[in-house]
Amino acid sequence: MEKIYDYQQLYSFCTAIFNKMGCSNTDADIAAKALLAADLRGIDSHGIARLTGYVRLWQVQRVNATPQIKITHETPSTAVVTGDAGLGLVVAPFAMQVAIDKAATCGTGWVSVKNSNHFGIAGYHAMMALPHGMIGIAMTNASALVAPTFSIERMLGTNPIAVAIPAGAEPAFVADFATTTAANGKLEILQRKNAAAPTGWIQTKDGEQSTDANELKNGGSLLPLGGDRGHSSHKGYALGAIVDIFSAVLSGANYGPWVPPFPAYVPMPENLPGEGIGHFFGAMRIDAFRTADEFKQHMDNWITRFRSAKTVAGQAKVIIPGDPEREMEAVRMKDGIPLVNAVVEDLKVLGEKFSLPFA
Amino acid sequence: MEKIYDYQQLYSFCTAIFNKMGCSNTDADIAAKALLAADLRGIDSHGIARLTGYVRLWQVQRVNATPQIKITHETPSTAVVTGDAGLGLVVAPFAMQVAIDKAATCGTGWVSVKNSNHFGIAGYHAMMALPHGMIGIAMTNASALVAPTFSIERMLGTNPIAVAIPAGAEPAFVADFATTTAANGKLEILQRKNAAAPTGWIQTKDGEQSTDANELKNGGSLLPLGGDRGHSSHKGYALGAIVDIFSAVLSGANYGPWVPPFPAYVPMPENLPGEGIGHFFGAMRIDAFRTADEFKQHMDNWITRFRSAKTVAGQAKVIIPGDPEREMEAVRMKDGIPLVNAVVEDLKVLGEKFSLPFA
Repeated sequence: MEKIYDYQQLYSFCTAIFNKMGCSNTDADIAAKALLAADLRGIDSHGIARLTGYVRLWQVQRVNATPQIKITHETPSTAVVTGDAGLGLVVAPFAMQVAIDKAATCGTGWVSVKNSNHFGIAGYHAMMALPHGMIGIAMTNASALVAPTFSIERMLGTNPIAVAIPAGAEPAFVADFATTTAANGKLEILQRKNAAAPTGWIQTKDGEQSTDANELKNGGSLLPLGGDRGHSSHKGYALGAIVDIFSAVLSGANYGPWVPPFPAYVPMPENLPGEGIGHFFGAMRIDAFRTADEFKQHMDNWITRFRSAKTVAGQAKVIIPGDPEREMEAVRMKDGIPLVNAVVEDLKVLGEKFSLPFA
Repeated sequence: MEKIYDYQQLYSFCTAIFNKMGCSNTDADIAAKALLAADLRGIDSHGIARLTGYVRLWQVQRVNATPQIKITHETPSTAVVTGDAGLGLVVAPFAMQVAIDKAATCGTGWVSVKNSNHFGIAGYHAMMALPHGMIGIAMTNASALVAPTFSIERMLGTNPIAVAIPAGAEPAFVADFATTTAANGKLEILQRKNAAAPTGWIQTKDGEQSTDANELKNGGSLLPLGGDRGHSSHKGYALGAIVDIFSAVLSGANYGPWVPPFPAYVPMPENLPGEGIGHFFGAMRIDAFRTADEFKQHMDNWITRFRSAKTVAGQAKVIIPGDPEREMEAVRMKDGIPLVNAVVEDLKVLGEKFSLPFA
């Protein structure tokens, strides 16, 4: 059961909620756009379904609605940004803009962020680089759900990586993926349906293969991209580790098992080695390497060649990263965004608390 | 059957062969060290076993032994380097040094390379950053053996990514992996043993799962990390694509199905869109983000915490990327490098051609 909502309606509700938290109009606008980009692009687990979660983090004072976001250290091509415990939805666009500004003057910009919170979908921030004729990169660590290869302990988050690359006549290449076999959102869908998960997604608390989509509640873990050692899970583990180190060890955020949890009721880990959650952003000016025209021509050639690659029987075409999300965004901007009942009910309760009716 | 060789003996043979090709003493030294780093670190498929292959590429004039390697475009933090068809083993260290020099002055350096050839193992070049207190990144495209998700056509190489991160008292974190489920070298080992490959490594020419380690000879393909769509092969495909675009579309090298093949007898693809093979290198100064001391202390904490994570039954410890290769290097530097008979025979034939006996 689901209900369809107009983007504008959800945007108004989100900004109003962020305002009630104490966010400035500017920050409420920035946060609502970042959050709803997930719903538009079909990554429902990371969108408005999490609004209540953000509010709860603010209620327990883990989110600061009026942060002083600042650069604390910099060189011509790098910066560390401190988010002052602000919403990641606000801190991340600030930091990505710093990366873009640095790229404008010296070719590339790289920003590591500490004391932030969850930032929505990585792809949204990476895509900020596209209108500037730049490649955008965004990654973040997250609270530990993933066991490294050979381990039964949750040590890494789903730690996504997004890379957005501009093209010419073709739409941009936009990869945005968790460094696990399956993102947590996919598991949530199976949980709602009471369906089994494929092997290679999760393990039990003892490290046995499991197809129980609820295994995490029993102490199990998500598995790194690859699934098991025979299918190179050590590569997914390495990718998640690189995201963790770039996002948090470079900046001074918490890393590994110490990353603060998203649910406000889950206690914070003890003996924190850093501040908040960490992100990492990059921007590379295309014309810092070759003329934008040449690059766009070859990028178009790359995309059309891959899209026309011979397919396996039953598949219409090879997908270019970003194709499904862009197509979804066009549909949902026009026809509206479906929200499942559980999310609608949750938003109604949230709205009542703030005297902001959600219909 | 194998025979053990002293590192110094192999080094002398390699430099002598490179000299015979016309390489300067300096270039022969650089190339031999880069090549043999693979043998030392246990990545036997990419080491001296390929020496004959490099010589054959020189014989058919695809490798230029006296290249004019040059920066053709640059900004404070970026450069494009043209390899002038030189050995990748020589071009890559040149380009990585440019990245390191740029990082020294403006925080980070990023170099895309065109008109190069195969560069050995990515990890060797990334590790060049470590003594400078920098994070090193290296990637390369390679001739197409990998089918994107939903495709039966070979469109990408095994396109490896290496990231080397310095630590304090702990050894550096060094990840170096192909963006496929299995590197080609692992397949070669199974081929020699006539053993079956696990599912998820390869598909037939029609896109069916296969366990035949020789399937590539029948028109089959390697699979991107993940293996199939249900296990997120689209993520491995995206990673391989990013490596291809950063290495070749940014620089002006060949990309996708047009990347020149390593075996000299395989004809070049037609209508090449660029020059040679492409690489991409990055260097990030640690103290462009935070003090080196702080970073090293937290990196040590990261490494010791992960290494002591609880293991599944039967596993002694969680491995930090780079641990096995570093341990192998210590053993092989001391006890020698084992070469299988086929490689020994191949090197003997090569030596005879150049009047350089290989015992």
